[in-house]
Amino acid sequence: MEFNISVIYGDGIGPEIIDSGIRVLNKIEEVYGHKFNIDRALLGGEAIDELGSPIPNETIDKCIKSDAVLLGAVGGPKWDHLKGSERPEAGLLGLRKALGVYANIRPAILFEELKEASPLKSSLIKDNIDICIVRELTGGIYFGEKGKEENEAYDVERYNREEIRRIAKTAFDMAMNRNKKVTSIDKANVLESSKLWRQVVEEVAKDYKEVELEHMYIDNGAMQLVRQPANFDVILTNNIFGDILSDEASAIVGSIGVLPSASLGEGVGLYEPIHGSAPDIAGENKANPIGTILSICLMMKNSLGLYKEGTKIEEAVKEVLKKGYRTGDIMSDNNKLVGTREMTDLIIEEI
Amino acid sequence: MEFNISVIYGDGIGPEIIDSGIRVLNKIEEVYGHKFNIDRALLGGEAIDELGSPIPNETIDKCIKSDAVLLGAVGGPKWDHLKGSERPEAGLLGLRKALGVYANIRPAILFEELKEASPLKSSLIKDNIDICIVRELTGGIYFGEKGKEENEAYDVERYNREEIRRIAKTAFDMAMNRNKKVTSIDKANVLESSKLWRQVVEEVAKDYKEVELEHMYIDNGAMQLVRQPANFDVILTNNIFGDILSDEASAIVGSIGVLPSASLGEGVGLYEPIHGSAPDIAGENKANPIGTILSICLMMKNSLGLYKEGTKIEEAVKEVLKKGYRTGDIMSDNNKLVGTREMTDLIIEEI
Ligand SMILES: CC(C)[C@H](C(=O)O)[C@@H](O)C(=O)O
Ligand SMILES: CC(C)[C@H](C(=O)O)[C@@H](O)C(=O)O
Repeated sequence: MEFNISVIYGDGIGPEIIDSGIRVLNKIEEVYGHKFNIDRALLGGEAIDELGSPIPNETIDKCIKSDAVLLGAVGGPKWDHLKGSERPEAGLLGLRKALGVYANIRPAILFEELKEASPLKSSLIKDNIDICIVRELTGGIYFGEKGKEENEAYDVERYNREEIRRIAKTAFDMAMNRNKKVTSIDKANVLESSKLWRQVVEEVAKDYKEVELEHMYIDNGAMQLVRQPANFDVILTNNIFGDILSDEASAIVGSIGVLPSASLGEGVGLYEPIHGSAPDIAGENKANPIGTILSICLMMKNSLGLYKEGTKIEEAVKEVLKKGYRTGDIMSDNNKLVGTREMTDLIIEEI
Repeated sequence: MEFNISVIYGDGIGPEIIDSGIRVLNKIEEVYGHKFNIDRALLGGEAIDELGSPIPNETIDKCIKSDAVLLGAVGGPKWDHLKGSERPEAGLLGLRKALGVYANIRPAILFEELKEASPLKSSLIKDNIDICIVRELTGGIYFGEKGKEENEAYDVERYNREEIRRIAKTAFDMAMNRNKKVTSIDKANVLESSKLWRQVVEEVAKDYKEVELEHMYIDNGAMQLVRQPANFDVILTNNIFGDILSDEASAIVGSIGVLPSASLGEGVGLYEPIHGSAPDIAGENKANPIGTILSICLMMKNSLGLYKEGTKIEEAVKEVLKKGYRTGDIMSDNNKLVGTREMTDLIIEEI
């Protein structure tokens, strides 16, 4: 089959990991006889430097017309002095909004092969940690009205019923295919927006009688993730709390470098590793390409309908980890240290 | 010396732990010849039940006139159906605002005696974890405009320069007496209020040339707390991020039951354990009284000028832990399980 895939290198280690991703896509073409038309689009810092805008119109056009978008990472100290709407991050937020990808799916999984990478004592890990974070991605304080005067500045957290309803549905649908438990995280003891959140989530829950729904305040959630990570199945939360909890969860499983994400809406899906642009190691062949490669796996399954191919990628990654190959970020005693390119070669070989 | 101390039992385990606290105060009177005039005030759920308001005027009057306020905890499922402004939590927020206690100091310390209670692998703990979280407590999204219409709800995060300046000063002052490092946590890549926060913190830092200032985004902060907790000294942050990070940090040191807090402003200080009202174990003599007792230690030092007495309380707590006595929440193999009252007796004996 033939697919159009937009790829965005972005900044920092972005070009290296996307290069790895493209090589994996090429290998899938070869093995399974598909055709991926790969078209590069600019976003974030690279777009500011080349075209003067963090999100050029042609990037939006290209992405909207493609079957899926693969993104490295954006941002870096080089652009930190710019004001909000001109920064690389504004490009990322703009793309999310333009594609309407309101549901950000971030699995926090402790790979059997990487158990030693978790900072937690093994007694807490129990059998496994396998959390699916469903973060609302196109609303809340990220996109609410904001402003600055001489002496003060503000940002508005705002949600409407429909925004909450659709993301809650995504979470419950995911739970149905997993362990049938949703933990909705909010601050309903203080925030009006959280009270509405809780109410709408309750309503949606009525259509999923088999799924257990639990509500938790964000402060308690941040604590329970550390204390009892194995108790979570699906976490449903808003944009800012999801940003915080997904990074915390990735630290808990100890391997942010291997975690992928999918951002989904009614149209084109956006796939990116959850780690950032890591400018400090850019260009040094040190970045972990697995977060990107597993994002391609999510793309295969969610946007292209290529389940077999997606599963193959996942198996290849696990096989290489089982053989003891590690990039620096997940390195531990008795394993073999490899760079970005070598790790990619090894995974491609297994496909 | 003679002092007027307002005590608020609050809800859930509040009465039990405050009872412990009062017994400790009595012992200090006895040993050091002070006089504490202890006056009970109602707040939260108990105030709703008895007086129909989560924060009766007489509570505010009493507290404002006292030398310090000791508070148990408020809230519980019994009052969850009430609307925002009528809930127990509104009482707590109202009291913080009425006392003007803009600086919430929450130490997250790994007690030598409780090292085994941390969920983290011992290699990450290094020598020790000793973080002081300085949370802004009377501004931000907790107190900004909020509202609800039929289909949407909103809350405004708003800060002005003066609010940021004074809390930043508190953090830098604390750092001067510690390891001279401040990590300011915000989301300046997305929020206008965070950009102003960063700018004002930079300005305040100029007066503290000896203190190293580091900025971190909240998502990264939530991650680094798990990965490298020993790298933090003072964490400076806003109300909502401070709520999240302080609970996360308490989980990391593994002993939320023993952690105290001080809320300070220009006037009367407010002292409370950082744990909540734990309605599930209320009345069962299971609550850990140490968070409250160490809050009294902070009260002695910060509001009453009784340094010797404060230090004595701290030493007594450590001594009892060293002897192996534990309440259920911090129990581990080979230690002796005791209840709220017995733990309090043991500590009093050491004073
Ligand atoms: C770069 C930043 C704007 C972004 C976010 O906060 O959403 C990132 O942290 C993420 O989680 O994808
Ligand atoms: C009870 C609640 C309103 C409160 C807060 O969020 O400030 C509590 O979580 C705390 O941290 O003291």
